[in-house]
Amino acid sequence: MHFELLATDGHTAARRGRLTTAHGTVETPAFMPVGTQGTVKGLTPQMLRETGTQMILANTYHLALRPGEEVIEKLGGLQRFTGWNGPILTDSGGFQVFSLADQVRVSERGVVFRSHIDGARLELTPERAMEIQAALGSDIAMVLDHVVALPSPPDQIVEACRRSVRWAERCRDVAGPPHQARFAIVQGGLDVDLRLWCSRELVSLRFPGYAIGGLSVGEPPQEMYAVLRDTVSALPADRPRYLMGVGRPEDLLEAIGHGVDMFDCVLPTRNGRNALAFTDAGPIKLRNACYADDPRPLDETCPSPASSFSRAFLRHLFLAKEMLGPILVSAHNVAYYQKLMRDSREAIEAGRFAEFREEKRRRWHEG
Amino acid sequence: MHFELLATDGHTAARRGRLTTAHGTVETPAFMPVGTQGTVKGLTPQMLRETGTQMILANTYHLALRPGEEVIEKLGGLQRFTGWNGPILTDSGGFQVFSLADQVRVSERGVVFRSHIDGARLELTPERAMEIQAALGSDIAMVLDHVVALPSPPDQIVEACRRSVRWAERCRDVAGPPHQARFAIVQGGLDVDLRLWCSRELVSLRFPGYAIGGLSVGEPPQEMYAVLRDTVSALPADRPRYLMGVGRPEDLLEAIGHGVDMFDCVLPTRNGRNALAFTDAGPIKLRNACYADDPRPLDETCPSPASSFSRAFLRHLFLAKEMLGPILVSAHNVAYYQKLMRDSREAIEAGRFAEFREEKRRRWHEG
Repeated sequence: MHFELLATDGHTAARRGRLTTAHGTVETPAFMPVGTQGTVKGLTPQMLRETGTQMILANTYHLALRPGEEVIEKLGGLQRFTGWNGPILTDSGGFQVFSLADQVRVSERGVVFRSHIDGARLELTPERAMEIQAALGSDIAMVLDHVVALPSPPDQIVEACRRSVRWAERCRDVAGPPHQARFAIVQGGLDVDLRLWCSRELVSLRFPGYAIGGLSVGEPPQEMYAVLRDTVSALPADRPRYLMGVGRPEDLLEAIGHGVDMFDCVLPTRNGRNALAFTDAGPIKLRNACYADDPRPLDETCPSPASSFSRAFLRHLFLAKEMLGPILVSAHNVAYYQKLMRDSREAIEAGRFAEFREEKRRRWHEG
Repeated sequence: MHFELLATDGHTAARRGRLTTAHGTVETPAFMPVGTQGTVKGLTPQMLRETGTQMILANTYHLALRPGEEVIEKLGGLQRFTGWNGPILTDSGGFQVFSLADQVRVSERGVVFRSHIDGARLELTPERAMEIQAALGSDIAMVLDHVVALPSPPDQIVEACRRSVRWAERCRDVAGPPHQARFAIVQGGLDVDLRLWCSRELVSLRFPGYAIGGLSVGEPPQEMYAVLRDTVSALPADRPRYLMGVGRPEDLLEAIGHGVDMFDCVLPTRNGRNALAFTDAGPIKLRNACYADDPRPLDETCPSPASSFSRAFLRHLFLAKEMLGPILVSAHNVAYYQKLMRDSREAIEAGRFAEFREEKRRRWHEG
C-alpha cells in the first residue's frame, strides 16, 4: 500500500490524497460503506460501484464466525468471494467482540468470548486477529484493540489504552500477506492527554496508517471534534488517518477539516433501510404523507441508482414493505456520501474547503 | 397492440410470435415476471431488463388499494411510476379479491369485499376494473372474471363461468385508452365441455387476446394439461394465448407445446427469496451444507446477475439473512425462465421443439 499527499487546503487542515492498493486506487478523503458480512446490505457490487464507492469495510468478527475465514480463503479471498473486486479494509473484530459477544473476558493474552450466533467459546488474540485478516486477504488490516464503553472509570480507560498499544505492537510483529497494510488504532476515550500519549506510542511503532477509534459512541459532537483535532495533530502527515465508525454528513466535513482521510459508517445503509434519505436539503423521511404524490427524485443534484424514481414511488415501496425501497434508498445514501467526498476533494484542491463546508451546513439546516 | 404469428413448430402445436405494444415488442412464447405492487420483488428495472425480461405483470387489486390508481395516473401511469418502461399487463383484480379480501359477496353487478390491508369496504365491478386499469395505463388489461376455488360444486363452477362471460362483454364495452388491449379469460374449472363453451362464447365477443384462468390451483399436472390442450384448440390461431399463473419450468414447456404464447408466475421470485435456484440440473436448495464451499456459479449455461458469484457465497448470504441473497437468486431464476423462453423460441423456429423439450426434461430429472 502506498499513500500520497496530493494537496492541502491552506485555510483548514483538510488534505487531498491517494491510497494505492493491490486492488485499486482510493482517492481521499474517502468514505467506505460497511459490508459487515461481505455485502453492503442490499447492493450488488455493480450498484455499489455505480455509487462512486472505491473501497469498502468488512467485519472480521462476523466473517470469522460465518462462513469462517478458511472458507473465504479457500474460495480465493474476500474479493473473489464477495464479488467486490476493489480495495477492502477489515476491522480486527475487537469492537464487535466487546459490543456483540457474550461472556467477554479480557486478559493480556487476548479476549475470550461466546459467539452471539451459536454460543461457541472462542478466543481472539492480537496474533489470531492478524491471522484471520491474512486469510481474508484484505488490503488494510486493523490491529486488535481493547475497546471500552464510554463513559467508563478513568483507570479502566487508561488500562485499556495501554493494553491496546501493547497489542498493536504484537499485531505489527506477526508476518502477513505482502500486499496487506496494517493500521494502528488510537484509543483513549475523551481524555486528550491519554489520546496524545497513545498517538505518540503508536507513531513510534511506525505503522503505515493510523485510525482513531472509540469516538462517536454517544458523546456530544463538540467533544468528539475537540478530541479529534488534538489527536490528528499528533499523527504523522505522510500517513493516512482513518476515523472509525463516523458518521453523519456534518461529522464527515468537520473531520475532513481536521485532516482526516478515511471514514466508514453504517448510517447511509441503515438509514436507507429505514426510509430516511440524505439530501442537500437535509434528511427526508419518506414515510411522511407529504411525499405521497411527490414526483421529484430524492435529490436532483445527486445522481444515484434511485435518481429515476419519484419520492412517491419510493414512499409506496416502504409502505408496501417491498425490498426495492431499502435497496434504492441505501444506494442513494451511499451515492450521496460519495458525492460529498468527491465535492470535498475538489474543494480542497481549489483551496476553498472552508467555504464549501459552510455552504453545505447552511443548506442542510435551511432544508 | 398487434400480434403476429411468425412460425409454428410443425411437430407440436408450439408457436413463435411477436406482440407489439405502445411500450415495446414482446417475443413469444414470453414469460412475464410478477410485479404485484409495481416492483418485481428485489429487482431494479435495470436488473430486470438484464434478465431478458420484455414484459411484466402488475396486480390491479394491490395497486388500487395502495397507493391508489389516481396517484399512479397523476404520476404518469405505471411505466413512469415504477421505472419499468417496457410493456405491462395488468390483471383485473378478480383473482385477488376472491383469494385475499375479506367478506366477499358476488352479485350480477360485481363483487363487494373488505380490503385485506385496512378493512375498507370496496366494490369491484367489470366497469370499475376497466376504469382502474385505464388509469394505470397498462398495455394489456384483463377482464374481470368470477373465480371459484377448485374443487367446487359443479353448479357453482357453471354459474361463475356464465357470469364471467357476461362480465367479459361488459368489460369489452367500456371505453378505454387507445393503446390498451383487453384480453378475455376462459374459465370452467376442469370441465372440458364448460371450457369449450366458455371459449366459444368469448371468441364470439372478438377480443384481441385470450387467457386461460383458474388452472394450476392444486389439480394434478396431467389434468391441467388435458384441459389446457382442449381449451387452446378452441381459441383463434391469430390471437395471443395467455396461461395465467403457471408455473414450473416443465409446465411452461408443456403449455408451449399446446400452443400457449404468454405466461406469468411468482415462482422464480418467490422461490428465489427462499434460496431455491432453478438450473438445468434441476432445482438447487442453497441452504444445503453441500454448497458451503462450492465455487461454481448456479448454472454455467445461464448468464444472469448472479453468474459471477459462487454457490458458497450465495449460501452464506441466506444463512446470514442478507438481502443480497434473495436479490441475486430471484434475478437468476427470472433469467433462467427467460433463457428457457429464448431457447424455446429458437427451437420452434428450427422445428425441433419436441426434441428440445425432451432434452430439457431429461436433464432436469437426471439432475
